[in-house]
Amino acid sequence: MGKLIDDFNAYRTKMNDRIMDTANTNIKRFFALDTTTYADGALDVKTKEMLGLVASMVLRCDDCIKYHLGKCYEAGIKHDEMNEVFMIANLVGGSIVIPHYRRAVEYWDELNEQQTV
Amino acid sequence: MGKLIDDFNAYRTKMNDRIMDTANTNIKRFFALDTTTYADGALDVKTKEMLGLVASMVLRCDDCIKYHLGKCYEAGIKHDEMNEVFMIANLVGGSIVIPHYRRAVEYWDELNEQQTV
Amino acid sequence: MGKLIDDFNAYRTKMNDRIMDTANTNIKRFFALDTTTYADGALDVKTKEMLGLVASMVLRCDDCIKYHLGKCYEAGIKHDEMNEVFMIANLVGGSIVIPHYRRAVEYWDELNEQQTV
Amino acid sequence: MGKLIDDFNAYRTKMNDRIMDTANTNIKRFFALDTTTYADGALDVKTKEMLGLVASMVLRCDDCIKYHLGKCYEAGIKHDEMNEVFMIANLVGGSIVIPHYRRAVEYWDELNEQQTV
Amino acid sequence: MGKLIDDFNAYRTKMNDRIMDTANTNIKRFFALDTTTYADGALDVKTKEMLGLVASMVLRCDDCIKYHLGKCYEAGIKHDEMNEVFMIANLVGGSIVIPHYRRAVEYWDELNEQQTV
Amino acid sequence: MGKLIDDFNAYRTKMNDRIMDTANTNIKRFFALDTTTYADGALDVKTKEMLGLVASMVLRCDDCIKYHLGKCYEAGIKHDEMNEVFMIANLVGGSIVIPHYRRAVEYWDELNEQQTV
Repeated sequence: MGKLIDDFNAYRTKMNDRIMDTANTNIKRFFALDTTTYADGALDVKTKEMLGLVASMVLRCDDCIKYHLGKCYEAGIKHDEMNEVFMIANLVGGSIVIPHYRRAVEYWDELNEQQTV
Repeated sequence: MGKLIDDFNAYRTKMNDRIMDTANTNIKRFFALDTTTYADGALDVKTKEMLGLVASMVLRCDDCIKYHLGKCYEAGIKHDEMNEVFMIANLVGGSIVIPHYRRAVEYWDELNEQQTV
Repeated sequence: MGKLIDDFNAYRTKMNDRIMDTANTNIKRFFALDTTTYADGALDVKTKEMLGLVASMVLRCDDCIKYHLGKCYEAGIKHDEMNEVFMIANLVGGSIVIPHYRRAVEYWDELNEQQTV
Repeated sequence: MGKLIDDFNAYRTKMNDRIMDTANTNIKRFFALDTTTYADGALDVKTKEMLGLVASMVLRCDDCIKYHLGKCYEAGIKHDEMNEVFMIANLVGGSIVIPHYRRAVEYWDELNEQQTV
Repeated sequence: MGKLIDDFNAYRTKMNDRIMDTANTNIKRFFALDTTTYADGALDVKTKEMLGLVASMVLRCDDCIKYHLGKCYEAGIKHDEMNEVFMIANLVGGSIVIPHYRRAVEYWDELNEQQTV
Repeated sequence: MGKLIDDFNAYRTKMNDRIMDTANTNIKRFFALDTTTYADGALDVKTKEMLGLVASMVLRCDDCIKYHLGKCYEAGIKHDEMNEVFMIANLVGGSIVIPHYRRAVEYWDELNEQQTV
């Protein structure tokens, strides 16, 4: 995998482990909800991950964007579909989203490059 | 149609007309982009409207929520699908979204009631 | 009770009932978490409600502010304590918070007036 | 004056008076800073009020928008200048700003109509 | 002290010094207000720092979070109390807060480790 | 040029090129609007760049702040003018803006140092 992906996953895993060691019951319930919310249901995983991505982009959280880009990639979202998600995020959130969009494109490229190696 | 829907549409139409009378070229281009972005493309209208809705909910704009709820209704989104969009919005945006979620449920109910009259 | 308080409580109760009738399991779990989070624990209810209030003020949600003002009032927070919460909210969130602060003062006054009737 | 302007000014004055009666020293200092910040200085009042307006629009606070629109009107900002402020706000803040832009246009119209009566 | 703490404090001190050298009177007054607001008063320092922390978390500013974590540590806040602040921040602000919560846990750990050395 | 400026410009150019290679028509239109919006018009470039800067500061986007600081520098904005923009951003956006203000001062210093070399 690429460096951006490795770094993101390594830190996320390390700190999520630490959180599970130290958090109280409510926090653990909140994290459990965060998992079940994106499970296949009335909407499929692909749609839900696009929803998570666009929400993360307009709220401008790079780590959340990376996480959902990874899940979108696993769900098989294609380039032209991803561009339409990117456009909605830029339009709704405004040009303030552009720096996060730049980093999203870089991460999305790295996700797609790993496939071809 | 119900009162919430009527009021929203009437004011939106009145002021959009006024904007088209007074705005400069860039603003008109921005409004045009706002329309073409949600057109059927690599993603269908239904998916795009759910993306617009979840973005509007986490950014907590009641008018934007009403607009996309109307479009979601026209696109045939079902109750259990809508609940999963609502859940992602509440989860990502937090409990601060709840008052907007309450008003969204009220508006969604009114949209669905008009059908049965 | 005063009119602002009555209107807020009536709409909140009506829509929360409607949500409990229509929501999916995850949404209900999220609402349950919203309740247990503010229960007496390592921090007492008074402190937690001040935390909920300041978070609501910097995120500028009038309904959330009203809700936590009501709970702060029940928890016995005094005027000079409330003013220090208000100041932290104005300082951290900036002058954009001021219109919400105005409405908070009006609601806080109504909460305190009901006592003296 | 028009009804929107009257209502805004009346409530703002009433609650600012109440705040001056009840607030602590830090809050009063913060309000004083809010006044001196927009005074004529290295930048003139007109420029500062446009800065206050665009900040209020991207943060989407209707009351703050009304306040700075009033001050912009007093400072003699012309329609084509105002449209360029509106465009920057819509562009940077995104389509989520549009409902606030609609209400801003309505208020700006009312400000300009009072002149011609 | 740990590396995260050292880096944060060094940069903050360097730039605050630079700001005091270059800023205008209003900015200096604003910084002074930022100090006096958290002083012991009707609410004690511990409570105020928790209020500053939760506000910083829902607004998702890592540097502000680090600053208030340091002050909370100095004020003697215990692990189970901190977890309840963390929960309120995650609940009110939503899952978009989680990446900031991860970094907060890492910083809080470093603050607590320095004690045992 | 200084290191902060070089790094910002290099990454921005690289990713904007990549975006132009991969984006759809709507995204390209949005980027075109982002350029034309700041062109000389009813308001001059200097005023527009200050508007872009203050909007970027209250929305707390470091990259957007750097971009507009660079443009403000090119437009000849003086230190005491810049301090008044900084103050409005801190006042409206609150103390949560301060960490971004620190980085803005560092970048503004680097922009001004290049002149004297």
